[in-house]
Amino acid sequence: MTTPSAPLRIAIAGLGTVGVGVIRLLATNAGIIAARAGRRIEVVAVSARDRGKDRGVDIAPFAWEDDMTALARRDDVDVVVELVGGSDGPALACSRAALAAGKGLVTANKAMIAHHGLELAGLAEASNAPLKFEAAVAGGIPVIKGLREGTSANALTKVYGILNGTCNYILSTMERTGADFAAVLAEAQARGFAEADPAFDIEGVDAAHKLAILAAIGFGTRVDFAGVRIAGITRVRAADIAQADALGFVIRLVGEADVEETPQGARLLQRVRPCLVARGHPLSAVDGPTNAVVAEGNFSGRLLFQGAGAGDGPTASAVAADLIDIARDEVGAPFSIPVANLAAIPPAEPGERTERSYIRFMVKDRPGVLAEITAAMRDGGVSIESLIQQGRSAEGGEVMVAMVTHEGPEANVARALALLEGSDSLAGDPLVLPILPL
Amino acid sequence: MTTPSAPLRIAIAGLGTVGVGVIRLLATNAGIIAARAGRRIEVVAVSARDRGKDRGVDIAPFAWEDDMTALARRDDVDVVVELVGGSDGPALACSRAALAAGKGLVTANKAMIAHHGLELAGLAEASNAPLKFEAAVAGGIPVIKGLREGTSANALTKVYGILNGTCNYILSTMERTGADFAAVLAEAQARGFAEADPAFDIEGVDAAHKLAILAAIGFGTRVDFAGVRIAGITRVRAADIAQADALGFVIRLVGEADVEETPQGARLLQRVRPCLVARGHPLSAVDGPTNAVVAEGNFSGRLLFQGAGAGDGPTASAVAADLIDIARDEVGAPFSIPVANLAAIPPAEPGERTERSYIRFMVKDRPGVLAEITAAMRDGGVSIESLIQQGRSAEGGEVMVAMVTHEGPEANVARALALLEGSDSLAGDPLVLPILPL
Repeated sequence: MTTPSAPLRIAIAGLGTVGVGVIRLLATNAGIIAARAGRRIEVVAVSARDRGKDRGVDIAPFAWEDDMTALARRDDVDVVVELVGGSDGPALACSRAALAAGKGLVTANKAMIAHHGLELAGLAEASNAPLKFEAAVAGGIPVIKGLREGTSANALTKVYGILNGTCNYILSTMERTGADFAAVLAEAQARGFAEADPAFDIEGVDAAHKLAILAAIGFGTRVDFAGVRIAGITRVRAADIAQADALGFVIRLVGEADVEETPQGARLLQRVRPCLVARGHPLSAVDGPTNAVVAEGNFSGRLLFQGAGAGDGPTASAVAADLIDIARDEVGAPFSIPVANLAAIPPAEPGERTERSYIRFMVKDRPGVLAEITAAMRDGGVSIESLIQQGRSAEGGEVMVAMVTHEGPEANVARALALLEGSDSLAGDPLVLPILPL
Repeated sequence: MTTPSAPLRIAIAGLGTVGVGVIRLLATNAGIIAARAGRRIEVVAVSARDRGKDRGVDIAPFAWEDDMTALARRDDVDVVVELVGGSDGPALACSRAALAAGKGLVTANKAMIAHHGLELAGLAEASNAPLKFEAAVAGGIPVIKGLREGTSANALTKVYGILNGTCNYILSTMERTGADFAAVLAEAQARGFAEADPAFDIEGVDAAHKLAILAAIGFGTRVDFAGVRIAGITRVRAADIAQADALGFVIRLVGEADVEETPQGARLLQRVRPCLVARGHPLSAVDGPTNAVVAEGNFSGRLLFQGAGAGDGPTASAVAADLIDIARDEVGAPFSIPVANLAAIPPAEPGERTERSYIRFMVKDRPGVLAEITAAMRDGGVSIESLIQQGRSAEGGEVMVAMVTHEGPEANVARALALLEGSDSLAGDPLVLPILPL
């Protein structure tokens, strides 16, 4: 309970919207933060690409370093805040240098933590320096702390959620407006909800970075980004969303992880996929750029954490919360369990899991197509719960056939679709979307 | 990062369902807990009223104390876990003794923390002993940690939520079945969702205990249970729920707190009331015994924490998470800010707040009643947005008149209703329910 009165001195690497947000937050809420942290948190130095750029905050009071790695060498800095981004390059160099110098590191960099988190945590543990990355997952939602401290007494059965605000904005806007993917993406880019190069978001990679971090903390396993199976949202059509709606579902990009005991030992399942989410499930009400994470513990039951998944304010809130933890000297192992004790669990083969699926085909409008598809389902061992063939399309003579399957092995769906491969009745690859269990 | 290998030794006072749940959790998840806490957590002693009672767990391995205060005197105990309940009496005596002896205290006792939390936190701070009470608010949801650590960098504009599972179960069951309050309460008692003496729950006192604790942590103020304005759910009728439904709302018991700057200085508003919640608001989807807390921060934006608000498993999960924090030596001030620095803020006068309201009258079915009511509204300064008079009731000749007001000062509603006081057109007091802003 002793509160050292010396301020916690920080350096910020990267002065984009988040870096500026952190400077603004620390100034605006300085009194509250000092009261809660037991001491002041002071920015002493900054580094960015362009010193002269007008950022709307005065950086003149702070020392400037052209080379952000030099921040790590400053004697007057206790913690480096890395807000540059990118899994490697300057962000990684600066982070390694900070931890190697025994300084604390706070970062919002999900790509770097997903790829190099174990190495960085090892460095932090070796030099007894704090490493914290609340802002790397789900923006302002304290979900890293939620898993590390809130559900810490539980064996988790499952962690899943909506981890990418861009995809969620696109999908919920498609739902609301009936517009198609490309049009909504363009609008999202114009409004600043999607990057100029949106690939990382819409292909599911960003969500996969976050999922790999959550899984490591939730299950006490080594971060395994390479083990995440990833499908993005680019193939979801307005017609799929309309069809899902008619069946009582919305479509959301969901990242999910669990650990399953198999005869061959424990297996870590991590995947990011667009899913059908029944109305009534807490994730179905998550709209726009909001994120939400569900953790199911063996004693806590289902817990939901929801809030803004991005933006300068929420991300700065998470960065500053980490700084307060450090100022309070409440730190501990970056992944909740020391790196040496994290379990190395091989990735699961999802083929043996069972689930219900939505399967959509674009087919040529000619006799016998339905018989061909349903025969393939039968031969693959897929049991059809309902099937809808839409009326003839106006152009091109393609029609949509959508079905919902009974619960069954995922491998059977793959087998049934393999039987249809190369069929000239199909116009393009079918789309398979799992139905998230209530 | 050094992890002392000596186990954390705990004593449990109170072996009801939660106490037994804690014993079971610590045994079931012992490996995970030791990995995350850096050391084992061991039950060494217990105390309860009846030693011989069959509880479904074997308490023979633990030392027994007839007097729970004696647990605090044992040299082999580091932390006392108080699960007896009641704001005073043995729970308080045992808690005081534990902290005075320099031992840690973990409790699920919301009444005790709401009434004596400042005294206990003072004792804890004086003896540098940990005091933690995550389980006292919202069961298994880590909302104390959420405010203390997750939103710590924010000035909160508002904290509110559904804090009593019994009330939420009753209201959402009334909504689903159309049954009246008394019938649903009886069913809830039969199913174990309501106590034999339900007054603390249905009158809003339990929610008020939790709200007072949340407000103290969220706003850095001294706990002020006496300052909470409380209305319970006993006057909500099936007809109100049906009427709200027709208007696009559900009814939920909501506790809310904020701090407002007035010309006279800061004022702390704390109140617990049944509210109309628009469908589309995150709280409207919170059904059954679930709890949910919303915290709105000036940088984080709106954060939602949702999960099981009670039950042995979720409550044990919260208790054990506190024990893990203590085992990790991550403790800090019980109310986030040391007691001496918590602000003493006088309670707000809500009359000057503006809101939309739902007002329901039961009136005698005779000419002129509507004119009398609407005249009083006009004279009180209340602007009516919509008004519905239901058809003649089958029995007693009473009919229901319900209205929704435009946003206006709460004091005006009170003034209008005062004008109707004593009118023999009214059958009973009107019911005023605020409409929660989206």
